[in-house]
Amino acid sequence: MDLDSRQTSFVTYLGALQERITQGLELVDRSARFRNDDWKRPGGGGGSTRVLEGGAVFEKAAVNVSDVHGDLDPAFAAQLAGDGRAFRATGLSLVLHPRSPAVPTVHANFRMIVQGSSAWFGGGSDLTPYLLFDDDCRHFHGVWKAACDAHDPTHYARFKAWCDRYFHLPHREEHRGIGGIFFDTLGANEPGSLAAHDAFVRACGDAFLPAYLPIVERRKDLPTTDEDRAWQLLRRGRYVEFNLVYDRGTTFGLKTRGRTESILVSLPPVVTFPYAPEPPNDRARALLEVLRSPRDWV
Amino acid sequence: MDLDSRQTSFVTYLGALQERITQGLELVDRSARFRNDDWKRPGGGGGSTRVLEGGAVFEKAAVNVSDVHGDLDPAFAAQLAGDGRAFRATGLSLVLHPRSPAVPTVHANFRMIVQGSSAWFGGGSDLTPYLLFDDDCRHFHGVWKAACDAHDPTHYARFKAWCDRYFHLPHREEHRGIGGIFFDTLGANEPGSLAAHDAFVRACGDAFLPAYLPIVERRKDLPTTDEDRAWQLLRRGRYVEFNLVYDRGTTFGLKTRGRTESILVSLPPVVTFPYAPEPPNDRARALLEVLRSPRDWV
Repeated sequence: MDLDSRQTSFVTYLGALQERITQGLELVDRSARFRNDDWKRPGGGGGSTRVLEGGAVFEKAAVNVSDVHGDLDPAFAAQLAGDGRAFRATGLSLVLHPRSPAVPTVHANFRMIVQGSSAWFGGGSDLTPYLLFDDDCRHFHGVWKAACDAHDPTHYARFKAWCDRYFHLPHREEHRGIGGIFFDTLGANEPGSLAAHDAFVRACGDAFLPAYLPIVERRKDLPTTDEDRAWQLLRRGRYVEFNLVYDRGTTFGLKTRGRTESILVSLPPVVTFPYAPEPPNDRARALLEVLRSPRDWV
Repeated sequence: MDLDSRQTSFVTYLGALQERITQGLELVDRSARFRNDDWKRPGGGGGSTRVLEGGAVFEKAAVNVSDVHGDLDPAFAAQLAGDGRAFRATGLSLVLHPRSPAVPTVHANFRMIVQGSSAWFGGGSDLTPYLLFDDDCRHFHGVWKAACDAHDPTHYARFKAWCDRYFHLPHREEHRGIGGIFFDTLGANEPGSLAAHDAFVRACGDAFLPAYLPIVERRKDLPTTDEDRAWQLLRRGRYVEFNLVYDRGTTFGLKTRGRTESILVSLPPVVTFPYAPEPPNDRARALLEVLRSPRDWV
């Protein structure tokens, strides 16, 4: 299959996945719907940004698909895994910020990039709890391990470690959450056929709802306290710090003048930045311990 | 005067200025006090971070003085205006986030850096209103212009333009606020004697309260609406974006492992990040116009 056909097929898959995920989330939320913002990129291509705000379960949720192409800035082109300046980038990216502090924030991304004659896949998904439930962490990692194991028995361990390395805030000496999986340049710098990577990334896309929705279902109606909410709001500040200071997709997107609202839709709906906050209780301290020293969950 | 004596004298001035400013702000706030956090830097030196939170007038206010020294990372040393790796950096930095949307956020910084045998001053102050009052902008710029004019008739125009260039968010095509003055490398890349620059920067420090407090006094009890508050909270998001994505002091501080809490104390107390917000009224639209095309206020 030629690269362009593969990428067109992949973005068709992503469009269907976006539909499946937004419908699944609406069924859980029950009170709010996604609105759709289609946009065009002046340099070529465009995307569909779907956002739900003010839901009963999701305070803010965004599921974006984009398919953009054109010519890369030469300095940036040289940093990528492919050759030349011509590129096409297709991806689905989601960040869900639940209202309840008992329900973790989640992020996922699945992408295929073509640069010149090179192509590669990247993506992953990671969980950011505010109250730590070991069961949830085991479930989330368990689903990703199963998705990985079906394709390559070495994937999970490597991609779990990659995730822990990537979602790290050096200035806080903390990880963003309890991890998940992260992978990049599959097909360029990583061994394996492009067709196999394609199948793997689609399997990851299919695994997203099973990895996350059961956690939402069992935590969304749990009673929480004002202290829990205050803790969630300030921990969301760390999410902002990571995305704006370190996240390559975000900083690259902003500096290359991507569609700002579709990039920054990842930011939490309400955030506090108190000075030098202390964890309010043992539960919060337990979370911090895990954020400082990632654990093996499965 | 040798550089070290000048810098010690400067930081003594800054300590007294910190005292004067925090007392002035407490007198206006009436309900909350600054608490003091003294800290030591492992590599040499330390600072005093003064923070007021939850005041009647100031929702969060921070006035920091630091005096740090040691050896710079070689790659970073090469980017600076001086020579060699040995450095001493002294400065006062403040960010005040008022509770009322009618009172603008303000930032100021005054610093002296010595690197090897070179020394320079930098600093400035800029205003970020949420509701635009032309009188306030004229007053703020008027005080800074007078402070500049007393030292050099060319300062204000240059430093006002420098401020507009620096506090700019390319991804929003907006400036952070209505500007003020910004200057750097006075004594290194800018003409004039170090003694003259020293006197100028102290005059700027002295001008801070007269530039800002009259604005607080006349706006703090103005009635505002829930719509104004919502607008303030989302505009604070732009402040976060600027500080975490572009501000050199912040990003450099975080990446070189400065004291995180003293760096990020600049972030607003409560922030919202709605998707693709529209200005809610004509007043908000008028502000956006000024943020897109900086105006000459005096």
